Amino acid sequence: MIDFEKMLRNVASGRPLVHAMTNYVTVNDCANVILAGGASPIMADDIDEVEEITSLCSALVINIGTLNKRTIDSFIKAGKEANRLGRPVVLDPVGAGASSLRTDTVTKLMESLKFDVIRGNMSEIRAISGSCARTRGVDADDSDMVTIESLDEAVSFAKRLSGSTGSVIAITGPIDIVADSNDAYAIRNGHESMSRISGTGCMLAALVGAFCGANPDKPLHSAAAATCMMGLAGEMANESNERNGGGVASLKIRLIDSISLISGSELKEGALIEKR
Amino acid sequence: MIDFEKMLRNVASGRPLVHAMTNYVTVNDCANVILAGGASPIMADDIDEVEEITSLCSALVINIGTLNKRTIDSFIKAGKEANRLGRPVVLDPVGAGASSLRTDTVTKLMESLKFDVIRGNMSEIRAISGSCARTRGVDADDSDMVTIESLDEAVSFAKRLSGSTGSVIAITGPIDIVADSNDAYAIRNGHESMSRISGTGCMLAALVGAFCGANPDKPLHSAAAATCMMGLAGEMANESNERNGGGVASLKIRLIDSISLISGSELKEGALIEKR
Amino acid sequence: MIDFEKMLRNVASGRPLVHAMTNYVTVNDCANVILAGGASPIMADDIDEVEEITSLCSALVINIGTLNKRTIDSFIKAGKEANRLGRPVVLDPVGAGASSLRTDTVTKLMESLKFDVIRGNMSEIRAISGSCARTRGVDADDSDMVTIESLDEAVSFAKRLSGSTGSVIAITGPIDIVADSNDAYAIRNGHESMSRISGTGCMLAALVGAFCGANPDKPLHSAAAATCMMGLAGEMANESNERNGGGVASLKIRLIDSISLISGSELKEGALIEKR
Repeated sequence: MIDFEKMLRNVASGRPLVHAMTNYVTVNDCANVILAGGASPIMADDIDEVEEITSLCSALVINIGTLNKRTIDSFIKAGKEANRLGRPVVLDPVGAGASSLRTDTVTKLMESLKFDVIRGNMSEIRAISGSCARTRGVDADDSDMVTIESLDEAVSFAKRLSGSTGSVIAITGPIDIVADSNDAYAIRNGHESMSRISGTGCMLAALVGAFCGANPDKPLHSAAAATCMMGLAGEMANESNERNGGGVASLKIRLIDSISLISGSELKEGALIEKR
Repeated sequence: MIDFEKMLRNVASGRPLVHAMTNYVTVNDCANVILAGGASPIMADDIDEVEEITSLCSALVINIGTLNKRTIDSFIKAGKEANRLGRPVVLDPVGAGASSLRTDTVTKLMESLKFDVIRGNMSEIRAISGSCARTRGVDADDSDMVTIESLDEAVSFAKRLSGSTGSVIAITGPIDIVADSNDAYAIRNGHESMSRISGTGCMLAALVGAFCGANPDKPLHSAAAATCMMGLAGEMANESNERNGGGVASLKIRLIDSISLISGSELKEGALIEKR
Repeated sequence: MIDFEKMLRNVASGRPLVHAMTNYVTVNDCANVILAGGASPIMADDIDEVEEITSLCSALVINIGTLNKRTIDSFIKAGKEANRLGRPVVLDPVGAGASSLRTDTVTKLMESLKFDVIRGNMSEIRAISGSCARTRGVDADDSDMVTIESLDEAVSFAKRLSGSTGSVIAITGPIDIVADSNDAYAIRNGHESMSRISGTGCMLAALVGAFCGANPDKPLHSAAAATCMMGLAGEMANESNERNGGGVASLKIRLIDSISLISGSELKEGALIEKR
């Protein structure tokens, strides 16, 4: 059983510092989502300071959304320090499969570091598993969407990958799957309109970092709770858009608003999660 | 005749991937505008992946808003791949004329690559034409604004420049001009309040990329349709601000909202465009 | 006496160009705040253009929020040009004290350049003063908050630091202090909810740049007026959130909206400022 209320309370009371090494497209949204969830963000990527910054922080998030070769060594240096200190590390392999640089970098990162959670869409997760992946840039290929028909297969895949990597695997899509090698959750929160906002995946990885930072011994529950919360916020944003009018920019404002407003009991009530 | 409805429908149905190599100031707005228009953005600038990323995409947008020398070669490599594959390439020469680095870089880019569309304000377009330009940073100099008096002259200038460069020229300002060597459109959509939002020009270039990606054989019509759409969205945002209250941040939210909400028939009805 | 109305009018009528060398997390908000205040932003950091860009501008803002070593020389080159031309230079030492790179860089910048205004939270300002500072990443340590009890001591500290650096010192927190070596102001505008938005400090430094650019002979008054304005905007945003609902993303939209809407007389009326 995931104790949603306690986990969210831990974020709010602990205000964990989250070191986010992320892309320049969605970085501001990631910072604001970390704050909305109750934690504090810090962004730093110069190789001469990442170790020190990581050492101040309760969690590290590595997102390769606008990968450049200059920061790969920074990722590894920060990650090694987090691993050494036993702080949770989250990987968001944005666009893995879309270029050799991204796929190879993810391979290198996974060889060098221990990740507590890896979050991606199915195309990205397939790419890092070494299985044949098609990709549509930073979006999942349509054939990779987890549906009711493919759910069992996807759950098995996620558990196996968690077993071989030692990381909790979070595969987001119409149905989200969050799994370690033993347990898996299927999460049906969210709304399709979220795909029309840039950065919902990055924001989720940032929020996973906030939950992990406050609940460091519970990476599976942290990833699941953050995934439910992001999805629930998307539902609330969509409802607000339908009620009050608004397009995709309002939807994003309302999504981040909702993350800052959801209480522990609302999260518990609203989570559409089942164990698989 | 521009078939606005068909062109916008092509964006929505084709969901073209747009590779945007752009500045770190307005990149998030560009990503969201590409999504709002119905396309999908991907941002990548490392020289070791830009060719691969471009090859996945239906269009490439190059914006030099926060130019740094490390990415100039990436621009050229991506652009050559797009040219080779026959994919549309859009240039936004932000701040051309404001520094030698920017002016020289634009010259180099234009010598190395074939651009389907070049979009800038009049100061930037004058700078790239080699004519004497004054500039006010990233804004057009007041003396460069296209007005009713200077419209004929500006149209001739745009047509000539299109003839010499082989690119559709889009000059944005109080009256926008979009021209190839034969045909020109004057567009009177938009509202002066848009000048109080950072990045409307960058967002327009991104939207031109989305239209070009979905309508690759029609760069003139793509640039004109995107320009009408951005201006119409600005009018709608301004009206909403006047009706509901709000300052410049609300204006930007409503601008991007409107882009996501404008239908083909609204675009057709609302376009204030005339052939010159 | 600070003539709030005249100072704000000078921004609106002069539309000063502000060269902002800032971090990639909050850069878009900084650009929009500069516009909201009535000025114009330009962002540029390549060493081969910063001198030229600075020479076009009325003020320079240097913010080390996502410091990387490649831009330190650009900061110095731009700063020297601004100093040579007598243009105001503002420093925002984000995260000073959080890493040696940041602390050492600030020391180097202060040795190389003359800053008109330095704005930070108390932990950052302590770090640059060489006194023992604790830090919580980019946030002030709780023990460093200026309160009613520590106000006199903090005012004396700010005046002394201004005397030794030659810069106006702006220390922001629950009570803000803005001081030169002779005079100090305590400012009680603002609302605690502002700490849940990423970048309010960066935005303030950008707004200080706008005020300094338009009022170059009045750095103390510029820093104080901008601080009052940002705080007042925060109060208005918070009231709007309480009245209309909304979370942290709406709060940021309303904050920037308010900056664009506050008139000179509202600023004068709303400023909660006292000389110390």
